[in-house]
Amino acid sequence: METKLKELLSIIQPLDEAAMAEARKRQAELAKPPGSLGRLEDLSIQLAGITGRVHNRMEKTHLLVFAADNGVVAEGVSSAPHSVTLMQTVNLTRAKTGASVLAKHFGSGITVCDVGVNADIRDKAVVNRKIAYGTRNMTYGPAMTREQAVTAILTGAELARNTDADALGVGEMGIGNTTTSSAILAVLLSADVETVTGRGGGITDDSFRRKKEVIRQAIAVNRPERNDPVDVLAKVGGFDIAAMCGAFLGAAASRRPVVIDGFISAVAALCAVRLCPEARGYLIPSHASFEIGYRLAMEAMDLQPLFQLGMRLGEGSGCPLAFQVLSAACAIINNMATFDQAGIDDGYLDEIRQGDQFTVEGKT
Amino acid sequence: METKLKELLSIIQPLDEAAMAEARKRQAELAKPPGSLGRLEDLSIQLAGITGRVHNRMEKTHLLVFAADNGVVAEGVSSAPHSVTLMQTVNLTRAKTGASVLAKHFGSGITVCDVGVNADIRDKAVVNRKIAYGTRNMTYGPAMTREQAVTAILTGAELARNTDADALGVGEMGIGNTTTSSAILAVLLSADVETVTGRGGGITDDSFRRKKEVIRQAIAVNRPERNDPVDVLAKVGGFDIAAMCGAFLGAAASRRPVVIDGFISAVAALCAVRLCPEARGYLIPSHASFEIGYRLAMEAMDLQPLFQLGMRLGEGSGCPLAFQVLSAACAIINNMATFDQAGIDDGYLDEIRQGDQFTVEGKT
Repeated sequence: METKLKELLSIIQPLDEAAMAEARKRQAELAKPPGSLGRLEDLSIQLAGITGRVHNRMEKTHLLVFAADNGVVAEGVSSAPHSVTLMQTVNLTRAKTGASVLAKHFGSGITVCDVGVNADIRDKAVVNRKIAYGTRNMTYGPAMTREQAVTAILTGAELARNTDADALGVGEMGIGNTTTSSAILAVLLSADVETVTGRGGGITDDSFRRKKEVIRQAIAVNRPERNDPVDVLAKVGGFDIAAMCGAFLGAAASRRPVVIDGFISAVAALCAVRLCPEARGYLIPSHASFEIGYRLAMEAMDLQPLFQLGMRLGEGSGCPLAFQVLSAACAIINNMATFDQAGIDDGYLDEIRQGDQFTVEGKT
Repeated sequence: METKLKELLSIIQPLDEAAMAEARKRQAELAKPPGSLGRLEDLSIQLAGITGRVHNRMEKTHLLVFAADNGVVAEGVSSAPHSVTLMQTVNLTRAKTGASVLAKHFGSGITVCDVGVNADIRDKAVVNRKIAYGTRNMTYGPAMTREQAVTAILTGAELARNTDADALGVGEMGIGNTTTSSAILAVLLSADVETVTGRGGGITDDSFRRKKEVIRQAIAVNRPERNDPVDVLAKVGGFDIAAMCGAFLGAAASRRPVVIDGFISAVAALCAVRLCPEARGYLIPSHASFEIGYRLAMEAMDLQPLFQLGMRLGEGSGCPLAFQVLSAACAIINNMATFDQAGIDDGYLDEIRQGDQFTVEGKT
């Protein structure tokens, strides 16, 4: 099993520097002040590095949502009961939830994959790759076995690789997963639990204190090895986050841009980058999550969000808008005129006159 | 002429509080943690206040671009010659420039209006509402007469009102207009020229120093009355900015959301708000311009940008992406399930089981 993971990591290559240089050259030729389209220029260069082509299109965009329950919910760390995981997993396939409404609205596809929901889901619209009926309660021992963690990673990678999308987005549904994300982040960054833990879906002061205690206890009991992301994911993570980590790796392995959603997605992306630093080049940020740990996770990857919408819904809800930004970046490099092409050769420039009120060189 | 302006201002009404309350109620009923969609929720509530309807659509979006030359270019404040105004005004109608490429890509309409280009433009795709062949050089006296300023405002308002768009965006093309924008902003905010002046399209250190000197001189020579935005626009503004100011007012008068692009657009919007504080409710921010004065202009209106793309191209290039955010906000309030609708009533919830690894209440 771990051999397969090593194989996956070995496939991931650095960005194509030659294609990026060509895209940079093209951007310099476009009729605009240098750099004046900012990150739309940067994204077009990154896309060239990812695909090896200067001209890219976002015709097919696709959201991968991984759903799982978390045993730690038993500790009262969440505002919603774990049954909401099941409910929203099914609703995600019916374009009823935030992320799925936006995906449908913008014409993005969506795959909802059960990697650990605590129920048998009969609805065929949910892809069944269930590893277990939720994780164990990490407060008292590892959330899952190492083998389960690797299975979840490989599952996410397989789904990302078996797509023909021009760009992927990675989201989740799993009550309790801001708790697991904060635990992972605290370990990976050797950070104080206080600095990486927020209120998730919205909890009381008491639950918030409890959430931080639980995370501290889970870390103390399990002693995850911070230099071994698989160990961290297994001990204080979740099936959803492990699969998401795999999806980021799978996207990189198949040279596809892959969009990070919010906090949980950023933590999964950080796990991917820790497993394989080359994966970073394939990551596209989206919105700045309102969750406190988001910024730290992004800083650890040296990534900045594209938009500030104060969102904290999860599910991949930031990805459809990020696809629009990527699409804008493609349109610019594909369709803008170069300085050579921008010249008006049909006589307009000859018509420039010294207007009655306008003096170019002198003073009025 | 000024009577017509007063009539315009008198039409502008506050947002519809009842519709906003209804939209807030609807947002609270949607199946998500309260506030978890952040500004997508806020925008849907603002849109309700603008149109008086809870459910809105962004089927027709339209970009208004006002083009004009600025006499102050004679002072060497710009990196590009004034002939670029003409060239790009025509190119804007041909989907060759940054903003027009993005407008076409996202299906937004575009109207390019000549309010003061220093050339006769024969191309019928450019709407001819020329007031003069560019402004006078404001370093030595008023850029235009007060009557011309009012004419430009009314022109912009008329174009904004004579549209059937669900949302408008306001952009510009006018070499030298970061100079005029900085001058207007310095006066309106009683701010030091240093704090509101950037490098625009990209100028040398010498030209940058010169630009600031020129702005200081223009203000000293003209002594614009800061409490009279028309006076400020006439003395140290431009036909483009005055028309843009009018477009913001016209959008508000016809109860349409109207998107601010970057620095110049934000200064024009601030002029509109100073003329009529009720206009603020109709404004939708887009990207955070890289130009230094942008933030101050936005703060003066208590507005925050939606995205951070490091853009500083102008033309209205931030508007097409903002239309996508508005469209997302509409999709959410129109299509997300409420808590009542989100319940899975076809037997899935009954199937929740105590998984072999998962214990809800107890400890594993």
